[in-house]
Amino acid sequence: MPLSMYDAAFPPVIKMLETLSAILDKAASHCEKRKIDPSVLIHYRLAPDMYALPRQFQIVTDQAKGMAARLAGMEVPSYPDTERTFEELKGRLAKTVDFVKSVPKTQIEGSEDRDIVLKIGGSEMKFKGREYVFGFALPNFYFHATTAYDILRHAGVELGKRDFLGA
Amino acid sequence: MPLSMYDAAFPPVIKMLETLSAILDKAASHCEKRKIDPSVLIHYRLAPDMYALPRQFQIVTDQAKGMAARLAGMEVPSYPDTERTFEELKGRLAKTVDFVKSVPKTQIEGSEDRDIVLKIGGSEMKFKGREYVFGFALPNFYFHATTAYDILRHAGVELGKRDFLGA
Repeated sequence: MPLSMYDAAFPPVIKMLETLSAILDKAASHCEKRKIDPSVLIHYRLAPDMYALPRQFQIVTDQAKGMAARLAGMEVPSYPDTERTFEELKGRLAKTVDFVKSVPKTQIEGSEDRDIVLKIGGSEMKFKGREYVFGFALPNFYFHATTAYDILRHAGVELGKRDFLGA
Repeated sequence: MPLSMYDAAFPPVIKMLETLSAILDKAASHCEKRKIDPSVLIHYRLAPDMYALPRQFQIVTDQAKGMAARLAGMEVPSYPDTERTFEELKGRLAKTVDFVKSVPKTQIEGSEDRDIVLKIGGSEMKFKGREYVFGFALPNFYFHATTAYDILRHAGVELGKRDFLGA
């Protein structure tokens, strides 16, 4: 069976979003066990000019829903960036999983050659579907997924790479 | 043109390895400018039980050469994990780029259904080529690439996501 855009991008992204939700459960139970106010962890970041935890999850989900919608030729659903608790971040991850799963596989067929235009700031980025997914959306997605993990790990949450790979 | 395993995995991995080399240049010039002993940055890590910088680069390159070789049905080249300077890490990145580029595209054809067996610790992991690349090798690759970036960013090196995406 030849490789499809769907197989290459959708199941790994869905799995990683579910993995990130399990990582948030570990962060919440870490706070409970160690009597840490969860809002302290929520405000953690790796450098003063890097994004804190919620923004990492917001961008991770933005990349996932953006990729799924653009490849399908659908409008990208807009979520307000208002999450401030572990539960709210988990809700955003779940909403994103539902959306990505709702995109029919058949609608992704042939998307490797679809023209994708991103508007970032004032400028436009143009890609073919395959360059967009493998050269932009997935590296971006994993960048913020890993940074979320790294923030929590740096803050002392007991996590290992197995938690990230979900193996 | 239908999506190929080569297109989905090889160019993005080569690009990211080159990007990581440029990030090391920025780390080296940061040390020079701020009169920081480079060995201090080399020993940085995000948590006492996480890997320091060299190991992140060693694993990133292991994932890249492992993926390229396994998909091609070749033996994975073995590199001794001895790098302790920015220059040595750049050398390892360059050597890996050369190897990944040396794998002929035609040898990757049909690798989506190739049986891949990994021996990790005492146990075996079995995959089809497509699951191995998109569900294991690439997430692992980006995990260590991002963590290398996050370590340097946390240590004060002036980097932005543009340095990571190489856009």
